Amino acid sequence: MNKIKTFNVCIAGLGTVGSNVIDDLINNHEIIVKKINAEFKILAISAKNKSKKRIFDISKYQWKDDPFELVKNDKCDIFIELIGEEKGLSFDLVKKALENHIHVITANKAMLSKYGNELFEIAEKNNVLLLFEAAIAGGIPIVKVIKQSIFLNKIKKISGILNGTTNFILSEMGKKKLSFKEILGKAQQNGYAEINPANDVDGVDSAHKLSLLSTLCFGSTINFDNVTYKGITNIDIEDIKNAEKLGYKIKLISESEIIDNKIMSVVEPKLIPNESQLANIDGVLNGVKIETDHLQSLVLKGEGAGGQATSSSIFSDLYEIALDTKSPSLGYAINKLIDYKKLDLSNKSESYYLRILVKDISGVLAKITSNLNEEGISIETILQTPDKNGSQEQIPIIIVTHETKKRLLSKALTKIEKLDFVLDNIAVITIDKSIN
Amino acid sequence: MNKIKTFNVCIAGLGTVGSNVIDDLINNHEIIVKKINAEFKILAISAKNKSKKRIFDISKYQWKDDPFELVKNDKCDIFIELIGEEKGLSFDLVKKALENHIHVITANKAMLSKYGNELFEIAEKNNVLLLFEAAIAGGIPIVKVIKQSIFLNKIKKISGILNGTTNFILSEMGKKKLSFKEILGKAQQNGYAEINPANDVDGVDSAHKLSLLSTLCFGSTINFDNVTYKGITNIDIEDIKNAEKLGYKIKLISESEIIDNKIMSVVEPKLIPNESQLANIDGVLNGVKIETDHLQSLVLKGEGAGGQATSSSIFSDLYEIALDTKSPSLGYAINKLIDYKKLDLSNKSESYYLRILVKDISGVLAKITSNLNEEGISIETILQTPDKNGSQEQIPIIIVTHETKKRLLSKALTKIEKLDFVLDNIAVITIDKSIN
Repeated sequence: MNKIKTFNVCIAGLGTVGSNVIDDLINNHEIIVKKINAEFKILAISAKNKSKKRIFDISKYQWKDDPFELVKNDKCDIFIELIGEEKGLSFDLVKKALENHIHVITANKAMLSKYGNELFEIAEKNNVLLLFEAAIAGGIPIVKVIKQSIFLNKIKKISGILNGTTNFILSEMGKKKLSFKEILGKAQQNGYAEINPANDVDGVDSAHKLSLLSTLCFGSTINFDNVTYKGITNIDIEDIKNAEKLGYKIKLISESEIIDNKIMSVVEPKLIPNESQLANIDGVLNGVKIETDHLQSLVLKGEGAGGQATSSSIFSDLYEIALDTKSPSLGYAINKLIDYKKLDLSNKSESYYLRILVKDISGVLAKITSNLNEEGISIETILQTPDKNGSQEQIPIIIVTHETKKRLLSKALTKIEKLDFVLDNIAVITIDKSIN
Repeated sequence: MNKIKTFNVCIAGLGTVGSNVIDDLINNHEIIVKKINAEFKILAISAKNKSKKRIFDISKYQWKDDPFELVKNDKCDIFIELIGEEKGLSFDLVKKALENHIHVITANKAMLSKYGNELFEIAEKNNVLLLFEAAIAGGIPIVKVIKQSIFLNKIKKISGILNGTTNFILSEMGKKKLSFKEILGKAQQNGYAEINPANDVDGVDSAHKLSLLSTLCFGSTINFDNVTYKGITNIDIEDIKNAEKLGYKIKLISESEIIDNKIMSVVEPKLIPNESQLANIDGVLNGVKIETDHLQSLVLKGEGAGGQATSSSIFSDLYEIALDTKSPSLGYAINKLIDYKKLDLSNKSESYYLRILVKDISGVLAKITSNLNEEGISIETILQTPDKNGSQEQIPIIIVTHETKKRLLSKALTKIEKLDFVLDNIAVITIDKSIN
C-alpha cells in the first residue's frame, strides 16, 4: 500500500457553497482516502464575517481575517475561491495563488469570463491548474465531459439552459399563468432568485457561462464581448400563452457555434418546439446539449445550482488535481487558443414571433403585412387573440414569420411601429425550429 | 514545443464500429495532434473477412490473418478489440494483449461482465489500462462521468435505458399501436434490430451493461449473476395502451443500488410515470440517471449505438491512455472491490400492473379481489376494458395494486390463475412511481 498523499486546502468565502465544501470534506474523508488513497486537509479558511452562523464549527480550523495569508502560505496546495467578486479581491487572490504555484478551484464565472485569459496564462506558466467545473451548470459535469470525454470530437454546436433562476421563472409563468413580476417575487421568497436578480434575469450570468463553454468547445480565446445577450424581463405572460398555442415553449437559450470561421455566441429567450430536448428542462434545472461530428446529440441535465450540487463539481476538480493528469485547465495550451472574430448577426436568417398591439380598426392587418412584404418577409401564421380586457378597442396581432434576416426585420418593424394604429413597441422573440 | 508522442494502435474486428474508428483516425489526425500533441498510428489490422467491402482502403494497412500477431507485436501500444465474442477469440486476444503490457480498448460488454474480473486484474498487474467507454450506452460518456467527474460522490442509485433496440420497439409500439412482432420486423428491416434479436429483447444486453455500471458506481466485484433480468417479448400492445390510460409509459428499465449492504440490480420492463425523465427518452436513444449524496438527479441522454457514436467513446479511451492519468480502469484498485451479495427481491415492496383475461360472467371481480385481499394486497385502480374483438365472451381486467411484496403477489396470482374463469396467464408488470 502506497502512502496516503495529502493535499492542503485553503478556502476563501464561506457562504452556502463554501460551507458545503467544508462539510463534505469532513464527512467524506474516509471514502476519499478509500477511493483515491489521498486526503484533502483544510489548512486555513477565511471569509468576510467570522461570526455568521454556519453548518460547520469554524473553531476547528485556522481562521485568517486576511485572505491573502491563505495564498501566501507555502504549505497550501489548493486554494478554493468562493468569494465571487467579478474582479477585486477574488481576482487578486486567485492571481496571487497561481503565482505562488498553488492550484486554484473556483466557481467564479464572472471573473473567468472577463479576466480568464490572464489567469489561465499564469496557471500554465506556473504549472498549476485553474479549474472551474462548478462555474458552469452547477452539478452537471459539463466541463470535464467536453475537456476529456469528447475532447477528440469536433464540436459543432453547444446549446443549453444555463441559468436556473430564469428557467424557474419561465417555467412557473407557464404553469401558473402569472406575470414575470409576480413569479419573480415568489422566486425571491423561495431563495430561487437573488434580491438583486439583474445578473440572472438580464442574461448576464448565462452569458458568462456561455463564454467559457465556447472556449472549451472551440478552443477560442476567452472573450466575453463576443457574447450577445438578452434577458427575460420583457417576456409577457401573453407571449408564453401564445407560444403554447403555437406548439412552443419560451426558454432562455444560450448557444454557441463557429460559422464561417467566426464565433456566434448568443443568449436570448427563444420559442423552441415543445417536443425538443431543451423544452423539457423545467424549473431550476439546467441542461446542456452538444452536437459533434460524432454525436448527433448528447444532453446532460441536472441541478444548476445549490450548495450540494456545486460542491460535487468542486470535488470533481479536487479529484482532477489529485489525479495529476497534466491536461491543461482549458483543455488547450494557451498558445493554441484561437482569437475568433464575432459573427455579424444582422445577416443571420431566423423565424420570428411578433406581438403587435393595434387599434381594432379595419385594414390594420393588410398594412402590417404589406410593410413586412416590402422587406421580403413572408408570414407563416397569424393569430389574432381577443383583448384580455374584453374590450375590443385594442387587439394584439401575433405573427410568425418565415426565416428572414434580422436587419430586414428591424427595418420593417421600424416602419410598422410608426403606423398610427400601432399602440406599443412590438415584442419580438426569435423562433428556433431547428432545436430538437 | 515538445515532440509529438506516437501511440501505435492495432485493431481486430472491422465491422461498422471498427471501420468508423479507422476512418476517424485518418480524418482526425491533424485535430488530434493539435489538441493533445499526440498521434495514433495504425500499426496493423485484422478481421475475419479480408475481402468484405469497407469504408476505408485496407490496402494501406498491414493486414494480419492471424489476430494474435497484433497482440504479440512489441511495437503495439494500444489494442482495440471489436470482435465482440463473449469469450473465445475476444477473451484470448485481450488477455494476451494485457499480458504483453498493451493497453486494451473494447466495446465488449458481454465479455467484461462475464470474465472482467480476471482481465482487469491482469491489466492492473501489468500496469496497463483496459478501457470500455464504448461498451455502455454507446456515445454517452457515462463511464468517465462516474469514474472521474462524480467519483468522490457517494452514488445512491443508477437507473437507465441501456438498450436502443428495445427502446425503439417499445416507443414504436406506443406510437403506431402495433404488436411487438410487427414492430420487431420493421426494426430488423431498418437495421435497428439484429436478425437474432434475443440478446436485446430478452434483456441480456442491458444486464451486461448494468453489471458493469454497478461496479463503477458501487465498487462491487463484477458479477453478472447478481443481475436479475427480464425482457420485453411478453409486452402486449394492450399493456402499452392501458399504461397510457393510467398515465404511464412502459420502458425497459435497468437499475442498480445498494440496499442493506446487498446489491440490487434489475433489468425489467416497468410502468413509469409519463412525466419522469426516463419516460421521455424515446426511439433508439439511451439515457442514464444517477442519484448521489450530492446530486438529486443527473441525467445523460444520447445515442446508445451506431458507428460514429461508439467511435466517439473509443476516442475518449484513446485520450485517457494518452493523458496517462494512472487512474485504475474501473476507478478502484482491484483489491478494493467489494463482493456484494445479491438482495433477496421477494421481500421488495412494489406496485404492480396486472392484466387478467377472464370469462365475462358475474362475480369474477369479487373473486379476484378477495384472493388478492387474502394476501393483504390492496387495489389502487381497476380498469375493465372491452374485449378488442367486440365479443364480450372474454374481457381483460386491469388491476393496479398498492405496494406489496413480490412473494405475496406470486402466491395470490398462483391461486387466481387456477380459478376456472381465468383464461390465460396473468400479465404482471412492475410499476415504479418513484422514478422522476
